[in-house]
Amino acid sequence: MTKKRILILGSGFGGVYAAVHLGKLLTRQELDAFEIALVNKENYITFQPLLPEVISGSVELNHVIAPIRRMAPKAHVYTREVEAIDLEARTVTLSPGARPASLTLSYDHLILAMGTQLDHSKIPGMREHASPFKYLGDALRLRHQLVRALEEAETETDPEVRRRLLTFVVAGGGFSGVECIAEMNDFLREAVRAYHNITERDLRLILLQRGGRILPELVESLAAFAHRLLIGRGVEIRLGAGLKAVSAEAVVVEDMSTSALETIGTRTTVATVPAGPHPMLSHLPLKQHKGRIVVEQTTAVPDWQGLWALGDCAAIMQVDGQMSPPTAQHALRQARTCAENIVASLRGRPQKIFKFTGLGKLGSLGRRSAVAEIFGIHLKGLVAWILWRGVYVTKFPGFDGQLRLIVDWVLDVFLPRDITQLRLFHEDPVRREHFEAGEMIFAKGDLGDKIYFIVQGEAVVLRGDEEVATVGKGAVFGEAALISNQPRNASIRAATALDAVAVSRSAFEELLGHLPGIRETMQRIMIERKELEPAKDLPVSKRALLKAPANHAI
Amino acid sequence: MTKKRILILGSGFGGVYAAVHLGKLLTRQELDAFEIALVNKENYITFQPLLPEVISGSVELNHVIAPIRRMAPKAHVYTREVEAIDLEARTVTLSPGARPASLTLSYDHLILAMGTQLDHSKIPGMREHASPFKYLGDALRLRHQLVRALEEAETETDPEVRRRLLTFVVAGGGFSGVECIAEMNDFLREAVRAYHNITERDLRLILLQRGGRILPELVESLAAFAHRLLIGRGVEIRLGAGLKAVSAEAVVVEDMSTSALETIGTRTTVATVPAGPHPMLSHLPLKQHKGRIVVEQTTAVPDWQGLWALGDCAAIMQVDGQMSPPTAQHALRQARTCAENIVASLRGRPQKIFKFTGLGKLGSLGRRSAVAEIFGIHLKGLVAWILWRGVYVTKFPGFDGQLRLIVDWVLDVFLPRDITQLRLFHEDPVRREHFEAGEMIFAKGDLGDKIYFIVQGEAVVLRGDEEVATVGKGAVFGEAALISNQPRNASIRAATALDAVAVSRSAFEELLGHLPGIRETMQRIMIERKELEPAKDLPVSKRALLKAPANHAI
Repeated sequence: MTKKRILILGSGFGGVYAAVHLGKLLTRQELDAFEIALVNKENYITFQPLLPEVISGSVELNHVIAPIRRMAPKAHVYTREVEAIDLEARTVTLSPGARPASLTLSYDHLILAMGTQLDHSKIPGMREHASPFKYLGDALRLRHQLVRALEEAETETDPEVRRRLLTFVVAGGGFSGVECIAEMNDFLREAVRAYHNITERDLRLILLQRGGRILPELVESLAAFAHRLLIGRGVEIRLGAGLKAVSAEAVVVEDMSTSALETIGTRTTVATVPAGPHPMLSHLPLKQHKGRIVVEQTTAVPDWQGLWALGDCAAIMQVDGQMSPPTAQHALRQARTCAENIVASLRGRPQKIFKFTGLGKLGSLGRRSAVAEIFGIHLKGLVAWILWRGVYVTKFPGFDGQLRLIVDWVLDVFLPRDITQLRLFHEDPVRREHFEAGEMIFAKGDLGDKIYFIVQGEAVVLRGDEEVATVGKGAVFGEAALISNQPRNASIRAATALDAVAVSRSAFEELLGHLPGIRETMQRIMIERKELEPAKDLPVSKRALLKAPANHAI
Repeated sequence: MTKKRILILGSGFGGVYAAVHLGKLLTRQELDAFEIALVNKENYITFQPLLPEVISGSVELNHVIAPIRRMAPKAHVYTREVEAIDLEARTVTLSPGARPASLTLSYDHLILAMGTQLDHSKIPGMREHASPFKYLGDALRLRHQLVRALEEAETETDPEVRRRLLTFVVAGGGFSGVECIAEMNDFLREAVRAYHNITERDLRLILLQRGGRILPELVESLAAFAHRLLIGRGVEIRLGAGLKAVSAEAVVVEDMSTSALETIGTRTTVATVPAGPHPMLSHLPLKQHKGRIVVEQTTAVPDWQGLWALGDCAAIMQVDGQMSPPTAQHALRQARTCAENIVASLRGRPQKIFKFTGLGKLGSLGRRSAVAEIFGIHLKGLVAWILWRGVYVTKFPGFDGQLRLIVDWVLDVFLPRDITQLRLFHEDPVRREHFEAGEMIFAKGDLGDKIYFIVQGEAVVLRGDEEVATVGKGAVFGEAALISNQPRNASIRAATALDAVAVSRSAFEELLGHLPGIRETMQRIMIERKELEPAKDLPVSKRALLKAPANHAI
């Protein structure tokens, strides 16, 4: 006899707590008949309110996560990604594990708790050059990036490069963006003391907010308090400023009232802009409201027996007539309602409706200050901060996790902050890069560390100040320096917004050595390039030649 | 006026402590004239004795490292790699930082403290498939790999794949290998309790040691104690067993007395085999002894004014006539001697010689047990373990680091061990893989997630059990499944030991879309492959055809 299955697809608190509640509510006999299965791409959940503290190091990085297997010991956990959902066949297909084969699970009940995903498509360069800020890996990567910027600025002699290294931009002035820049600011201002050549005055931290004020989730007086406090601590806040494009060296910011564009040089951009619907869910034949699946107040999806949705991916009308907001406190209670209703349906009992309407809102501002709206009361400063820490430590799953947090916070009071840079991340050897019009892709004399192929856009080739050629889609450049191991012999500048694929030296050498066709093509390109060389006095004809979609190179 | 420079190239305690001592010994006037510059590829040093505890999680991962800038505040720290050393010109060239340009530093005094590097060349597949165990990143990666193995074994149904996932091999029975397998064993045996389908009996941990006993650094009675203790805790110890080859799925082990080979299926191999000389140093025109630079007892390199060497990369004869061993306690004292002698030479004073001959040896066995030889006294068990912790906590640089260690150890007594799997690592999209003769590269029906190019060796193509072709160097295979998005339509097995370049689906798609020449070649290959298809009844001719160095594919 095969067991029936209650399958939960979850990436956050909603999914895990549905498994926790099901494990508690189901009797032993019911658990013999029904397997609780939970699919999550990690074996832990990230406690997002504490994520900003990982940046400053006031909480240890693995103290903001909780192991799912310990939280929901009765669930069967699959640490895989969801590849397909078939509502007709009542199956879900998961990504390969130890073997290169998919795994298909059938279900009797399916709970969709897959959250949202950052939508990169609207802002050019965001995917390639902005750090998201949602998961533990994001926080670690950002911290690594902050320390790297300090390390490089310490020994950098070019003042413009130094300025870019020491300018940090956070896009999005909601809770996430405000908490993120507050912790970045605290960390950087303390960390610079360990450097000889950087002072606090060299640091520039900029918060971009499209709307007219930060923290639109809160009442205006609290937002104004947070605004003044951040400015007092050295953060620059730009209101009515929308992020238009991101490159490795800058952000383009639009003034929302005048539509004027401004470029701010920076090597560190964090995007906390709102996430969009999960792409897998948007393909399902289900009624949606602003990208969220419309469910009944029982968390059941109408017209699909045994299908449930909750958390950020579900649109649930609250008893007060408001749409339930995408927060953890709501997801947690929806998970409880959902678990109770599944158990009730198994036992043939009546369904309950979701009655929670929210307790309050809390936002940390770093260094012993916060803002809070609880049961209609407005709190700010130290009182709100104590409340903030108290609430989140009690919300953290498990006594051991709570104890670890308290110890971290106690030690943080009197120990200096960690400034080590964990070099766990390296650039992908084959990766996309985005350039805005006018940006240098590389300059004559640079070390040749990458080869580029233009995916879209145009670039000009410069010898000195002279534009000797324009190249477009399909053009390859930068291979000469790689092959000869000499500095770049020309400069390339993006003439339009430009997307390129960059291949690192080591990957290129592997491919050149072993991938059939590449060596021949590269040789042909280099011969063509040599033929072009003497024609320096004929820029017009050369430009025409190079505009052809052939594979000309520098 | 440009400052003179004392330049230290260091990757461990020796280099950093030379900077610490120089900072303390030099007067303010001398520091105005001489810059202390330290080059290290990280901005921290790893406290290696504690590294095994990161695996089990009894110490937090960033509590085993110490920030160099705080330890040596008077030094100018360059977090770069060394690219070239020119002893004649008295310059050192560093890798690029924020800009694609090298940095060349001149020096008046140069201290070589670059340690050793793992030599991958002797064991096929070691670079590709074995984890080193020297730096923090190695420990983190290994921990991640252990949890991943448990996660995958939990849901794996193929018993052979499951066995490989739950078999863990450590090569090298010295301190490092013994401490590593002890902590792995402790961690895994506790962690399995959180899994439904894995028990302690499913775990297999194997320690490979070429010599006749483990811990050759210690007296025989202590080594025998450690041996019995590990076996009692479930570790398998193979003496006289040398690592001959590593693949993604197995290790090949040689019986050192009979030369018989045995293959042990495993997905996790750790190599703690001895490291070799640093490749950069072996090219210098300096006298060497077993890959270490021969220095005088003052740590000065003979015949090169202002050149010094210390730590694992230096061969220093001790006052007792022994060669100074490559341990941190010796490197620390050599650093002091070196710093004192540089200062003495600046002041025209006489040089001192290195007089330290070692205090003792300590090895942890995990779970409240250790072995120790201190001042000729032999200790084992709990007493040695208390000594071990006491010694290392006092040796750890800085009070804050010491306090953090103590807190970790206290919490570890009564909190459960963390079983979260930080997914910070992903396979390189372009990487080398090694296969031993007889291993499947992929099987018919597998999902096509990679394309392969043979770098050396031969493979056979199988349709069912029939060998339909042999392919060799330069052959490409696996692209059909990638392009068609269908499961593999044939199997490939390594006929000899084989090295391949594997390119991931995503990287291949980027290259196919944008790298000139590839699309055409792939189309040609696929047409050729189709032509071969009907010739299934002519295996001999096909085989002959495919043996040609052309780019045939499956």
